[in-house]
Amino acid sequence: MVKTIKGTTPKQDGFFMPGEYAPQEKIWMIWPERRDNWRNGAKPAQAAFKQVAIAISEFTSVTMVASREQFQNCRMQLPEEITVIEMSTDDAWMRDVGPSFLINGEGERRAVDWHFNAWGGLVDGLYFPWDQDDLVAQKVCEVSETPRYRTSNFILEGGAFHVDGEGTVLTTEMCLLSHGRNPHLTKDEVEIYLKNYLNVEKVLWLKDGVDPEETTGHVDDIACFIRPGEVACLYTEDTMHPFYEIAQATYRELLEMTDAKGRQLKVHKICCPKQAVTIPEGIEIDLVEGTLPRVPGDICIASYLNFLITNEGVLVPQYRDAHDALACEQIQTLFPDKKVVGVDTLEVVYGGGNIHCITQQQPKI
Amino acid sequence: MVKTIKGTTPKQDGFFMPGEYAPQEKIWMIWPERRDNWRNGAKPAQAAFKQVAIAISEFTSVTMVASREQFQNCRMQLPEEITVIEMSTDDAWMRDVGPSFLINGEGERRAVDWHFNAWGGLVDGLYFPWDQDDLVAQKVCEVSETPRYRTSNFILEGGAFHVDGEGTVLTTEMCLLSHGRNPHLTKDEVEIYLKNYLNVEKVLWLKDGVDPEETTGHVDDIACFIRPGEVACLYTEDTMHPFYEIAQATYRELLEMTDAKGRQLKVHKICCPKQAVTIPEGIEIDLVEGTLPRVPGDICIASYLNFLITNEGVLVPQYRDAHDALACEQIQTLFPDKKVVGVDTLEVVYGGGNIHCITQQQPKI
Repeated sequence: MVKTIKGTTPKQDGFFMPGEYAPQEKIWMIWPERRDNWRNGAKPAQAAFKQVAIAISEFTSVTMVASREQFQNCRMQLPEEITVIEMSTDDAWMRDVGPSFLINGEGERRAVDWHFNAWGGLVDGLYFPWDQDDLVAQKVCEVSETPRYRTSNFILEGGAFHVDGEGTVLTTEMCLLSHGRNPHLTKDEVEIYLKNYLNVEKVLWLKDGVDPEETTGHVDDIACFIRPGEVACLYTEDTMHPFYEIAQATYRELLEMTDAKGRQLKVHKICCPKQAVTIPEGIEIDLVEGTLPRVPGDICIASYLNFLITNEGVLVPQYRDAHDALACEQIQTLFPDKKVVGVDTLEVVYGGGNIHCITQQQPKI
Repeated sequence: MVKTIKGTTPKQDGFFMPGEYAPQEKIWMIWPERRDNWRNGAKPAQAAFKQVAIAISEFTSVTMVASREQFQNCRMQLPEEITVIEMSTDDAWMRDVGPSFLINGEGERRAVDWHFNAWGGLVDGLYFPWDQDDLVAQKVCEVSETPRYRTSNFILEGGAFHVDGEGTVLTTEMCLLSHGRNPHLTKDEVEIYLKNYLNVEKVLWLKDGVDPEETTGHVDDIACFIRPGEVACLYTEDTMHPFYEIAQATYRELLEMTDAKGRQLKVHKICCPKQAVTIPEGIEIDLVEGTLPRVPGDICIASYLNFLITNEGVLVPQYRDAHDALACEQIQTLFPDKKVVGVDTLEVVYGGGNIHCITQQQPKI
């Protein structure tokens, strides 16, 4: 079996990335352990990741990868139905370092292994080095026996875009045109990469995301496809909310968009947490030169949009906030055939992301 | 899926280890890298392991596991049809650290995860620590989604026994009754473990192996089943050969044995290398307290019996010796329906084993 496809693109070979709502074989995750990002030796984060994995496994098989050092602990912490495989990483964001799986119409699976540079490399990346993270997609492909396309020098993370599975990709200019990723490419050239590797016809460009300093505006905190032709969007009318301006702008931008099939997008509002979530006092993380500090009072990127759609379930972040239940209700309305499950992921958002950021779906073939 | 079976044994559950000649799904191997065991930075050994893997892959799929440090090099050295998966180990002996796979008659697969202590632990083991080696069987089971039995405190390596798949296990007293393994158990108690975990009826005890100092007499250098009721045995009439006495004794012992089905064993002679293979001059290995030194002139455990039976092929060690071709001819006669392939594995024997020691078969179900 050829493992690395050379000389062709997914578009040429008839492979495309299905929407997250397409049938899934399994969900991949990474066990967190960085003590300079996750507080208190990563123990609270591990407990939260465990709850996310257990919640997913009600609907879909989960494979958790863990370092040599954490393999035994991870294996013993998790229920046996969750598979645990040794794998080195630089942190725990499987959405961004894992492969973007593709399918064709004929029962075959491939994947794109994007270049990864920790969300901005030496310009504004979040840590150094990122060499083990950049190998994760290849290693996942080896374990899952998935042939992969490796982009030549195109930097991208899985959380930077959403596809509808019918020819459309949704992304942000703030992220994909950032100085830390592909400054050698024009906007048109970036579009060509997306079209060739995701096999889409149309790129929908939002302007900004809510976190200019971490992921530089990943779309998966502000909007996503819930089915072809329909998107969910973060929304608030609270002018004091830190996400107010981006939420309003994103909502207006989405209302104007049509997808690759010519459908005007139907846009569904999802509330923001009522209170801004902030880094608490007493956060004990290792201090290391060059990594992003976590200072008490800093605003966290706490969005309900960072949910995961997985087979018959939808896993929604919960922040011990007055709007937690409302968010679940709103999302449940969008997925009448699925079970919405909220998971307390405050400890995940303290580390810089949420359920969507720490998962990657492998589609069923 | 239950991953660790508790409270029952394979015998109770109807699982048994098939003979090596039963149909195989894949062969597992470990990429060598220890610079205190493999000369010249393990580069010659890696080249030899690569040739073994390529030779096997003509008949059976191969999965090579490699450390974080060697993953990229291993992946790029090997042809793409060989799968490469990250896994930490303490050395490269998959036969001894990997799981012993079991099947039942109903299309299911399980495995035994023996305790491993580097062939003798703190008494006469070959290195310290061996914690990563002892996790290999579990990790292989996770990747292959195989439920495992973990023995409570019973030390054993896969190279210490051969099964015929019809109720018989062949082993040596030198190894299984050694002080470094299970000194708390009597011979009868060891038999009970073998019978319960391999699901056999009869244990055939040879007295000694050819390497009292390394594996303490693994059987897989002196004899093996070639099919139920028939064994191959190392043999020489050269009274000056270092293996002469053991070869003669083993041959005589085997002639007297009957298997679990009551068949008297048919014993086939396999020649020894004409010249004793010795550690050459100019061997450059890192010096580390507590590991076995490799001194020029030391006799290597160079046996043609350390071959691997794999689907339509048999892989036979070659030592650049005058008897290499004869050994292949003798083994070919024993396997008229398989293709015998010799592989130059001098660099493997310099490290203490050969093709059988560095492989582990996963049976087809």
